[in-house]
Parts: sequence; structure tokens; C-alpha cells
Amino acid sequence: SRSISLAVIPGDGIGQEVVAQGLKVLTAVLPQDVKLETKQYDLGAARWHATGETLPDAELEQLKQHDAILLGAIGDPSVPSGVLERGLLLKLRFAFDHFVNLRPSQLFPNTETPLAGRPVIDFVVVREGTEGPYVGNGGSIRTGTPAEVANEVSVNTAYGVERVVRDAYERAQARPRKKLTLVHKNNVLVHAGHLWKNLFDKIGEEYPEVTTDYLHVDAATIFLVSDPGRFDVIVTDNLFGDIITDLAAAVSGGIGLAASGNINPTGSFPSMFEPVHGSAPDIAGTGKADPTATVLSVALMLRHLGLGAEAARVEAAVTADLAGRPAGRTTDETGDALAAAVSG
Amino acid sequence: SRSISLAVIPGDGIGQEVVAQGLKVLTAVLPQDVKLETKQYDLGAARWHATGETLPDAELEQLKQHDAILLGAIGDPSVPSGVLERGLLLKLRFAFDHFVNLRPSQLFPNTETPLAGRPVIDFVVVREGTEGPYVGNGGSIRTGTPAEVANEVSVNTAYGVERVVRDAYERAQARPRKKLTLVHKNNVLVHAGHLWKNLFDKIGEEYPEVTTDYLHVDAATIFLVSDPGRFDVIVTDNLFGDIITDLAAAVSGGIGLAASGNINPTGSFPSMFEPVHGSAPDIAGTGKADPTATVLSVALMLRHLGLGAEAARVEAAVTADLAGRPAGRTTDETGDALAAAVSG
Ligand SMILES: CC(C)[C@H](C(=O)O)[C@@H](O)C(=O)O
Ligand SMILES: CC(C)[C@H](C(=O)O)[C@@H](O)C(=O)O
Repeated sequence: SRSISLAVIPGDGIGQEVVAQGLKVLTAVLPQDVKLETKQYDLGAARWHATGETLPDAELEQLKQHDAILLGAIGDPSVPSGVLERGLLLKLRFAFDHFVNLRPSQLFPNTETPLAGRPVIDFVVVREGTEGPYVGNGGSIRTGTPAEVANEVSVNTAYGVERVVRDAYERAQARPRKKLTLVHKNNVLVHAGHLWKNLFDKIGEEYPEVTTDYLHVDAATIFLVSDPGRFDVIVTDNLFGDIITDLAAAVSGGIGLAASGNINPTGSFPSMFEPVHGSAPDIAGTGKADPTATVLSVALMLRHLGLGAEAARVEAAVTADLAGRPAGRTTDETGDALAAAVSG
Repeated sequence: SRSISLAVIPGDGIGQEVVAQGLKVLTAVLPQDVKLETKQYDLGAARWHATGETLPDAELEQLKQHDAILLGAIGDPSVPSGVLERGLLLKLRFAFDHFVNLRPSQLFPNTETPLAGRPVIDFVVVREGTEGPYVGNGGSIRTGTPAEVANEVSVNTAYGVERVVRDAYERAQARPRKKLTLVHKNNVLVHAGHLWKNLFDKIGEEYPEVTTDYLHVDAATIFLVSDPGRFDVIVTDNLFGDIITDLAAAVSGGIGLAASGNINPTGSFPSMFEPVHGSAPDIAGTGKADPTATVLSVALMLRHLGLGAEAARVEAAVTADLAGRPAGRTTDETGDALAAAVSG
């Protein structure tokens, strides 16, 4: 018998509603001999308004003790931009060294896509999660005056790039097509770009079965709409990964289906799983939020925790459900349907 | 009677072929009393291979004397990534202070789009051209070792942001829908983001008729495929502009139709007009290159030079031509057809 200690951060807006469905499905799919213990953390916009806190050290320490974290969505228009992103979400990703930000894209049958002809889409983006322009090494002088200068520094290290590129090669190697694409902008960001490209080429020598190619980020956006079927595994920088995974979600069923894992593959810290979408305050409380992205994030979590069969069961249930999903179903009804489908 | 002194940089690959068509159409559309003088500059991959030079100071000085520059395409796989981009193309944009990188997107009738349902697309991106992560203020230490650190610095100034944002408001004000969207990532790149957002809001007070909104760059890519009709004028940073204009081109007829102007609105230096596409060495010399993007760039140039009626004639000819363009037409034939259509 085994037990999973799960930290739950529902967060803001629809975060609460979708996380509830994720937990329903998780509870339903777990084998009898796996004990699930959850602890909720009250973090996000409401907490910040009440106390001014985003993520106090004491709670960061507590979160560290869990096996994994399930997060709903963080953010509200009432909070200045950047406060919760830098103070909570990115703080977690950096503190727990989530260097693999895993974002699969798949066009499920019967889902919406803006693309004509419903191309086959089945790829995964391995987005670096702890470096690049996300490090917060920026600043401004003469702020607010006509002489202001504001800088943002993208920091990239061989240490950080090598580990994520290696992880991406491993994932490509394990997939049938065995193809890995590096996305960067090495014709302009020459220093960071050359670091990425050199390590990508060098590590590639250890994976002779993996076919590789390189695309500038601007060209990658073209292929994501004109020929998304060409992608198998993509590895990229933190910011480019942010941009292309939203686009990838848009072409493959929409942001309501896009799952993600912020993974520390070493296991030194808990990994964190979250839908790619935001808190969508405009539809919070209406029952219109689609919990599928959260449920698929739970599947990524199950696989990360070594419960591959259960992950596959959740994914199969989602695929079947989407194929026949009735229009106008509520958040709760979708959660119930998926929970029923995965249990027993 | 007036004369135009035009510098022509055909560049590499299909650059040569498409520029020839652009010049054909330009010659055909100009009124009798406008004298066109062109001077070709041999810059690009061949020159670099022959002499190691990208853009010598003497030629930069000569280029400065012209009224405008028409550029085909720069780049070849035989040249290390970054050499020509930084040493020639970006050097021109920076030396001539091309702070408005203008990139219109329009879905012409009868053209290809990967989007289902052929949405109406008619917007223009005003991409900042002289700041951001393009400034070349990066570097690396311990290069090539496992301890390498490579940084890229995005530099943003109130001076640089204000002038491009103001230009974008002017353009939005002059269009029927009068809508301006700022695209940035101010929840993560908080210093640069706040500078952009604050100036955007402040300058907006001078343009009460212009409706504004703000999108994070990741969300912008979603709307570009799910609802491109929502955009009228977009103003954005150099790198975000690079990315979203390739995506914009992909959804609106493809990169073969995307025109651009690197504009210095003050007139202190010549502005430079170029298709957004690259040198496409794979199709160079086959006659398959579509010169339309170059011809539309010539239209942007005509408008910049105060020849608005001629610009409109070129654009009308392109629209009509695309509507009835026979399949398999060569680069040259398309140039001839467009030249015939605008003359007389
Ligand atoms: C909310 C924001 C900080 C975040 C990011 O930029 O990483 C989000 O867009 C994402 O993709 O998870
Ligand atoms: C070739 C490259 C330097 C250039 C850029 O990044 O600006 C190109 O992609 C463009 O959009 O004009």
C-alpha cells in the first residue's frame, strides 16, 4: 500500500471549479491500495487582498513536503499585473526547480480547431522552466520619467540548457516518430541561441535514432498553423515555450483542453500540474468552465508519480468523453462523467 | 518634376528574382515626371564569402544618401547564423533608426489560409525596430564549457517606446475602426512591460477616439488564429513583433504575400522596404518565388514617399491579380502581369 500527499492550490476564478473536478477524477481512478491525502492552500488573489501575501516562506516549506501539487489558476484583474505571477506561480516554478515544463498538444476527435481540414496534431513541447527571460533579472532607472530605461535580462546556462535538452531527447527517443525540434532565435539572440544550438547538437550525438531539426521561433509559429503534423517533440526556451504552447493549444482544441506539468525530474522537489488556461474571471461561477485541461493535468501527474496505467485510463476517458460530449454540459457534469468513466 | 534615388539590395536566393519584379512594377507605376534612379548594392552571402564583409562603413554612408532602400532577402545556410542578420539587416535597421517596422496583414480574396471559414483579416502591426532584445547587448562567459552563462539584454527606453506608440496611435486614428492593441508580456517582463503599458495608457489620453486593449503575447497568438478579425492596429516590442507578424502572415495568405517597411518617420535616414519572407534557397532560380510581397513592399514605399495614389494603384492591381491568378505562374510572369496592370 502506498500514499500520495497532494498539495492543492485552487487559486482564483475558475481555478476552484476545475480543481474540484480534477480531484474527483483522481479519487475515482486511484487503486484501492493507494491512499490520497490532500491539503488545500489558500493562495492567490483573495489571499493577497486580505493579507498582502503571495507565498510566505512558511507555506513554501510546507508545500515542499508534498509528493505533488495540483494548481487551478492564478490571477485576477484586481491585482496589479505581475504580482501573483512573479510572487506565486513563477516563485513556485523557480523554488522547486521545475526545469521541464511539459505541454502536450493533441487534436482530439470532435473538438474545435480554427484550422481547416483538421490536421493530425500530436506533439509535446518541453519548455525550459527556470531560466531565460523569466529569471526576473530586470530593472529600470528613472522610472516613470521621459528618460526611463527598463531592461530585462535573459539568463541561460549550459547547466540549465543541457538538462532540459537531455530530457527532451529522452522523450523523443521514447516516442514512435523519434523527432526533436529545437525552437529558438539564434540569428538574433546569438549568445543564448548558440548555447542552445551547440548543446542541442552535441547531446544529439548520444541519440542517433532521434531525427532533429531547428526552427526560428517566428518560423515555428507558421508551421504550427500550416503543418502542425510535422512536430513530435519540441524543446525550447522559457519565453518561446510560453508563446508557442498557447498557439499550440489554440489550434488543438482550445485552451480548455491544454494540460501542463511543471516537472522536476530529479524528485528533489514536488512537481506541479496545472491547466495552461488562466482564471477566466468572466465565466467563474457560471459552470461553463471546461475542467478537461485540469483532468488531463491530473493524468500527467499520475504518470509522473509512476501510475502510468491510471494516467492512460484518464486520457482514454477524456478521449471517449470528448467524442460524444453533449453541448452545454456544466463543469460539474463533465467532472462527474469523467470520474464515472475512470472508476472500476 | 521630381526624382527618387533608390538603393536596391537584392541580397540572396530569391531576393534577386523578387526585387527585379518589384522594380518592374515600380517603374511602370511612376508618373512620367518622376525620375527613378536606382543603384544596386552587392551585399549578402556571396559578398561575405568573397570578402568577409557584411556592410562596410563606406557603403553604409552611400546608402544614407538615397531616398529609400528596397531589399530582397538576406541569408544563406552556408553563412553561420547571425552573421548577416546582425552584420547587415539589423545593422541597417539600427543605423538608420528604423523605429517603425510596419507590417500589414490582409486576407486577400482567393488566397490560401490555414484557417477554416476564411475570416476577415485586415490589420497592421507596428513593430518597434530599434530596441528590445534586438539591441545586441548580450554576451557569454566560459563559452563552450559546461559552466557557460549566456545572457541577452532587452533594452527599452521611454524615448524609444513613446515614439513608436505615438506612431501607432496616429495610424489607428486614421483607420475606420480606430482600434489599437498593445501586445507585451507585462506579467512576467514587468519592468519593460510596465514602461510599455504606462506610456501606452498615457499617450492614449491624447487619442480619445481610439479604442485600446492590451494582450499578453501568448494570448495574442490565440486570437490571431481564433479571431483575427478583432485586430485593427497592433503595437508591440521588436521580438514579439517578429513572432506575431510571421504568424499573421501565415494566416493571411502566407509569407509570399507579407510586405514590410522599416520606417524612420522623421526622414533623417532612408526607410527600407522588404518582403517578410527569407531568401528561400530551396526554390531560388526555379521561377517559383512569389514576388507579391515585394511588390506590396514597393506600395508601402510609394506611400512613404508621398505617392499615395500610386501605392493604391499597386495594391489594387495585386488584389485583382490574386483574385484571378492562374496556377503555376512564374515569378517573372507575375511581375509582368502586375506591371501591365498598374501602367497606363
Ligand atoms: C501566467 C504566466 C506567468 C504564465 C507564463 O508566462 O508562464 C502562463 O502564461 C503560462 O503559460 O503558464
Ligand atoms: C532575419 C531576421 C533577423 C528578421 C528579424 O528577426 O527581424 C526576420 O525574421 C524579420 O522578421 O524581418
